[in-house]
Amino acid sequence: MSIANVPVSTLADMFGTPSYLLDIADLRERCRDVVAAATEAGEQHGIETSVYYASKAFSSTAVLRWAHAEGLRVDVASLGELVTALRADVPGHAIGLHGNNKSETEIDLALQHSVGRIVIDSLSEIDLVAERARAAGAVAPVMVRVTTGVHAGGHEYIATAHEDQKFGLSLATGAAAEAVTRILAAPELRLLGLHSHIGSQIFAADGFVEAARALLGLRSQVAASTGTLLEELDLGGGFGVAYTPDDEAPDVPALISELIATVARVAGETGEAAPALSFEPGRALVGPAMATLYRVGTVKPVRLEDGGERLYVSVDGGMSDNIRTVLYDATYTAALASRRSDAEPVLARVVGKHCESGDIVVRDVMLPADIHRGDLLAVPVTGAYGRSLASNYNQLPRPGVVAIGDGEPSEIVRRETIEDLLALDLG
Amino acid sequence: MSIANVPVSTLADMFGTPSYLLDIADLRERCRDVVAAATEAGEQHGIETSVYYASKAFSSTAVLRWAHAEGLRVDVASLGELVTALRADVPGHAIGLHGNNKSETEIDLALQHSVGRIVIDSLSEIDLVAERARAAGAVAPVMVRVTTGVHAGGHEYIATAHEDQKFGLSLATGAAAEAVTRILAAPELRLLGLHSHIGSQIFAADGFVEAARALLGLRSQVAASTGTLLEELDLGGGFGVAYTPDDEAPDVPALISELIATVARVAGETGEAAPALSFEPGRALVGPAMATLYRVGTVKPVRLEDGGERLYVSVDGGMSDNIRTVLYDATYTAALASRRSDAEPVLARVVGKHCESGDIVVRDVMLPADIHRGDLLAVPVTGAYGRSLASNYNQLPRPGVVAIGDGEPSEIVRRETIEDLLALDLG
Repeated sequence: MSIANVPVSTLADMFGTPSYLLDIADLRERCRDVVAAATEAGEQHGIETSVYYASKAFSSTAVLRWAHAEGLRVDVASLGELVTALRADVPGHAIGLHGNNKSETEIDLALQHSVGRIVIDSLSEIDLVAERARAAGAVAPVMVRVTTGVHAGGHEYIATAHEDQKFGLSLATGAAAEAVTRILAAPELRLLGLHSHIGSQIFAADGFVEAARALLGLRSQVAASTGTLLEELDLGGGFGVAYTPDDEAPDVPALISELIATVARVAGETGEAAPALSFEPGRALVGPAMATLYRVGTVKPVRLEDGGERLYVSVDGGMSDNIRTVLYDATYTAALASRRSDAEPVLARVVGKHCESGDIVVRDVMLPADIHRGDLLAVPVTGAYGRSLASNYNQLPRPGVVAIGDGEPSEIVRRETIEDLLALDLG
Repeated sequence: MSIANVPVSTLADMFGTPSYLLDIADLRERCRDVVAAATEAGEQHGIETSVYYASKAFSSTAVLRWAHAEGLRVDVASLGELVTALRADVPGHAIGLHGNNKSETEIDLALQHSVGRIVIDSLSEIDLVAERARAAGAVAPVMVRVTTGVHAGGHEYIATAHEDQKFGLSLATGAAAEAVTRILAAPELRLLGLHSHIGSQIFAADGFVEAARALLGLRSQVAASTGTLLEELDLGGGFGVAYTPDDEAPDVPALISELIATVARVAGETGEAAPALSFEPGRALVGPAMATLYRVGTVKPVRLEDGGERLYVSVDGGMSDNIRTVLYDATYTAALASRRSDAEPVLARVVGKHCESGDIVVRDVMLPADIHRGDLLAVPVTGAYGRSLASNYNQLPRPGVVAIGDGEPSEIVRRETIEDLLALDLG
């Protein structure tokens, strides 16, 4: 197995295991494709578009630089993510600040760099952002995060009137409309538009369409009552990816094109000018661009209650570098990466080295029966919420991220050392 | 609210928020009490006892030093945990090495420091440890981790013949007995005894008793077939703690005394000398000794479907410093810590600042209706699997651990900075 023409065994020798391996061309192509699709559909329908890379999926200077070079803006939700975007030379106007609990420090740094938008998440935040803008002598461009009642995931969506969650301002209770009114009255704030984020791992368009209709409805209502036609809607992210061959992943560029066309049509029905549209993919861009490379250790056959057998294949990482399997009951696959084997495939489970029986990386996968200590095992599609949620559980140093251009690997996030951990331990 | 006579508001001023706050006297007393209970019950029944602190719950040099000073040995399951124990001047003979997938490096360092025991977890590990011992010119003291089929948690236990999990050697298939035979035949290995670990958050003795009976049965079988009466059994850890006032936590010292008495009685029935006994508490020692101190940010009332209301109280941390709520559906409580309030208690949910609706710290708790930005909120019993599983999700630096002796606070694990995160980011 090779990544960007470098054999993974070479990468293991150069950088050790476990490592996250990032295929630069794959990442950049995914970025380029969503921007091209949004731009093309936008031009076709007379709609301005922008696409934001959602930092929370994976944030590093190099990745943000590549994403921005491909035409993406960057979403951040904390001081650390904002600092990383600035370090990647993403200009302030191409940065959006999110978060249900922004600190004054985060808002101040965002204003200092004239970020393109701050997404207001609560009524109390209106006063906070206005106050910080006043202190900075600035006018803050803001959006209102609207909870539309639409929740999507997989191929299904549901819609409820009230949302029992921390994000946003409710459409149903009138909190979203009240936020719009208050913001329009605040001289330190400039209201760009409305924002919605409906879920994650979404495979179908209908939930987005439902949310877009809700936002367009509020936009019309605002126009009727205030005379202000809001210029932009953000439909958020959550576009699904295939983790295993059994998943039918959506074509994300096509999905975005479809949403742009739909919004143009629905807005057209109202006779109002269509809004600019923005999207916030993260997982769909960086998730499939990375794999985790592990070294196999203990291999142990375990007898099952039904008389069958499962091969437990232990690797040199685990829930510290990929907590999604245990946290979200996520499914992954795995492949022997360092050699060919003609051995019969057997039912296996890839587990980590942590002191916890739930420490599972891949719950069910067929692996060659002759897999053994020293083999390399690759788990694909680990770019999103892998390194970003990694821990030092059991005092394991976190893996580095190795980015591979054509034949040229280099570490963009360096592997932690035990010395790094001990540097925080003051004894 | 004060911890070890220092007001939490003083601690917030000195060390910032979020911070983990460790009450040194509470930790040391819990350590002292389990050691005293084990020693006393052991002397009463003519049984040698030892208690190991399970590093995985929380590992830092200071905490291991305190635990060892109170008479505990230390369990480690990785190079990082082993290095930390050595740094805390825990002598090798008081260290036990665990793990389903030990590396050669881990085994070599353990042998170099003459650790008291290496707990063998698979048949293939027998050869590996023997080979490393031969290379080191040492004889490795080992135990066999036995999967007895007993699984416990809460007040219940279940027993199955076969165990579909990564740890240990099966009693039912004969793998455990085979491991014993192989180890007894290996000149580089000295077999101390048998080990069992049945679960976590266990509130009752019966699961431990069932597992002890299984180990005693295997011990008798080994004695009959080989003439060797194994000297020690380890009954593992997993003793439960109360996370909320609704939990009825076991009295862990009393539970350990009861188990020692029971093993003495059951062994007595066989006419064999009772084995030495060891235990491995972690959570029960360090869990209740720490609380997390947060600063409140956004407070937002959210209308529920049933017409009721929930107050979402956002804090300046979240699932990055306590993933147990979302990972294990764990329950916690929280209290306003910086002032008294006579305001009516209302249904609240404590949430973090991460970009994820599942980012919940305390699912349901009554908090004063006047809670507001700037208040301090304390979440107790966060010492175990809190900092040890912490991540930098959303590029949030991880909180420090502040240990407080009587009136004397100091950071034993320093707060991370954004510069620490960027030091790993090679750009």
